[in-house]
Amino acid sequence: MLVVQKYGGTSVGSLERIQNVANRVAKTKKSGSDVVVVVSAMSGETNKLIEYANHFSKTPSREDMDLLLSSGERVTAALLSIALNEMGLKTVAMTGRQAGIVTDSSHTTARIEKIDPEPIKRELEAGKIVVVAGFQGISKDGKVTTLGRGGSDLTAVALAGALGAARCEIYSDVDGIYTTDPRIEPKARKLDKISYDEMLELASLGAKVLQNRSVELAKKLGVVIEAKSSFNDNRGTIITKEEDIMEKPLVSGIALDKNQARVSLRGVEDRPGIAAEIFKALAQENINVDMIVQTIGRDGKTNLDFTVPQNELERVKLIMDRFSHEYESIDYDPKIAKVSIVGVGMKSHSGVASKAFETLAAENINIEMISTSEIKISMIIDEKYSELAVRSLHEAYELYK
Amino acid sequence: MLVVQKYGGTSVGSLERIQNVANRVAKTKKSGSDVVVVVSAMSGETNKLIEYANHFSKTPSREDMDLLLSSGERVTAALLSIALNEMGLKTVAMTGRQAGIVTDSSHTTARIEKIDPEPIKRELEAGKIVVVAGFQGISKDGKVTTLGRGGSDLTAVALAGALGAARCEIYSDVDGIYTTDPRIEPKARKLDKISYDEMLELASLGAKVLQNRSVELAKKLGVVIEAKSSFNDNRGTIITKEEDIMEKPLVSGIALDKNQARVSLRGVEDRPGIAAEIFKALAQENINVDMIVQTIGRDGKTNLDFTVPQNELERVKLIMDRFSHEYESIDYDPKIAKVSIVGVGMKSHSGVASKAFETLAAENINIEMISTSEIKISMIIDEKYSELAVRSLHEAYELYK
Repeated sequence: MLVVQKYGGTSVGSLERIQNVANRVAKTKKSGSDVVVVVSAMSGETNKLIEYANHFSKTPSREDMDLLLSSGERVTAALLSIALNEMGLKTVAMTGRQAGIVTDSSHTTARIEKIDPEPIKRELEAGKIVVVAGFQGISKDGKVTTLGRGGSDLTAVALAGALGAARCEIYSDVDGIYTTDPRIEPKARKLDKISYDEMLELASLGAKVLQNRSVELAKKLGVVIEAKSSFNDNRGTIITKEEDIMEKPLVSGIALDKNQARVSLRGVEDRPGIAAEIFKALAQENINVDMIVQTIGRDGKTNLDFTVPQNELERVKLIMDRFSHEYESIDYDPKIAKVSIVGVGMKSHSGVASKAFETLAAENINIEMISTSEIKISMIIDEKYSELAVRSLHEAYELYK
Repeated sequence: MLVVQKYGGTSVGSLERIQNVANRVAKTKKSGSDVVVVVSAMSGETNKLIEYANHFSKTPSREDMDLLLSSGERVTAALLSIALNEMGLKTVAMTGRQAGIVTDSSHTTARIEKIDPEPIKRELEAGKIVVVAGFQGISKDGKVTTLGRGGSDLTAVALAGALGAARCEIYSDVDGIYTTDPRIEPKARKLDKISYDEMLELASLGAKVLQNRSVELAKKLGVVIEAKSSFNDNRGTIITKEEDIMEKPLVSGIALDKNQARVSLRGVEDRPGIAAEIFKALAQENINVDMIVQTIGRDGKTNLDFTVPQNELERVKLIMDRFSHEYESIDYDPKIAKVSIVGVGMKSHSGVASKAFETLAAENINIEMISTSEIKISMIIDEKYSELAVRSLHEAYELYK
């Protein structure tokens, strides 16, 4: 059986922690599994290198940044290999290139195009533990590339897929995925299993654990992920195909996102294409519009509400000024929160949404916007009610059980 | 005209110093030359990584060490490229692999086997400054290798040879090569030019400037080196073919080596092969024997004196014990010094040696061993007279002029 393990920056954040990782890897190997280990840079290293680069330039070239930033993972890979060696295990440390990871040429945000599994397979067959520097690959013209934020997770998932690994274990300093943020609701419960789609919708709960790009890739490749902590031996959360989850919960978790701001246009001319023009302008500036609600207002005019990332609000205002002739008034509200209820069981059950609305109504929390998908209901509320909303919904759906 | 410049660890030891290097490189480029820059790791980085490795193991694998240690030069190369970019210059940063440097598989002490100059040539033709991470290459089976101590100098000299550069400038925190160590003789004078062979013999004077392996490679490839400081604009010392030095000085410099110890065997049986056996045993343990003198003693027996590195003396004693039946007595003296007079002019002039002997005799310094080559006279003396010997010889040959 082959297991791919990935250890994040906190898990390898000091020499002592690298030794701890070595002990865990050795235990897995001695239990009879083949192991491929993917490592991040020691926590702090990447930020230090970015600071170095910014000392010289606010806009360093992406190629140079890739050469710079790829060095941190190489250091960790070499050190972990040395530590395992000293424990009597046969190892080989590999760069992304040596591990056969070929990417496109989008430096700093490269996409994996293909993986040649042969180099790793050969070493596994020779009985070695393979330690791979995460986050990096090589472009077809031979340049070092990096995969962007969460890149080491992507390396691990992609290798697990290419090698047909039984499981991809993603280690961090968090135990797994919880029904909601335990800092808000102490009764939050760790989930044993969750589907890829639920995980994608619960992004805010998994943000510290793994990025959406990795979940999407795992879904595409059919890689089973276990998210767990490198600091204890607790079971983690399995992220897998919906079909592999026997008991489909009505609701799996409650997510909270406080980083949105609402833009409200009143009295928009009701002619075709005006909304499209506005959203095109925002897209061109790489501003990610999340929820959109359009309602009929007075005099045959419409109201248009949408949310954008809070930290983009100033840029959004500049863009909206260009459209000032298209609406009667505009209002910006950064003090909102998005509460989402996620669960694959919703597909086949009605009444999930109405329970949410009732629960918030009972707490006198006004719902400003609603959007629903097959497995998610999102509601925009006044930010000050965030925690109360999360706790009462967590209770209403009995997620503590 | 193409110039290869190499900046050592002290020259790139901080972000400010990297900016200083960028300024120097930019000046060279703007003067009309094409420039290839080879950089070392920031000073302290390599030692830090070695400490990290030794935290886990006193005997880390050489392959792992190469992956580990090659990261430092990559960081410097990327940062210098970013700094030059910001100054409006077009650049490309390259690893050893990307620069076409192929080595054998002797990890941590790899030898350069060939260089494909095409990747660098293409970038130079596109008007770019090429920044290369020194000290590293790639083996034929695709693994990262490093070239050992002084490896970045080797990278620079080898690239200069492969690219047909007009000159290879080696920058450090030292101005050039002096007639002797200025800390011993303040009247020591910087040499304008020196031949490869003299430089090799004056190794101890150039130790902080460049290693013998680089000088040997430069001689083989016919690369003209200029050793100079990155902290000022002084002219450095040119190291070149003997034929290119118009005025051949009788004596170029006085070198001092205090790191030798003398081994004296008395009453060695005068039969063929006994010296060969002893030196073979030492060679097998990788102990570098420097000077050897054999003299006839009493009763048809011989005396054998030789010098070995002082820090190997304990190992030498163990080996010599195995031969104890071959000699009557043995004596070890670590308190000796080797003073050498070097100059290509000696070849065609007599009287150089006798002046040295007279000079030391006038100071009442006893010469314990002598060995001569075409361009060098080395003398072993009591260590306590080292500085006096150097100063009086420097004076006798009028090297201050």
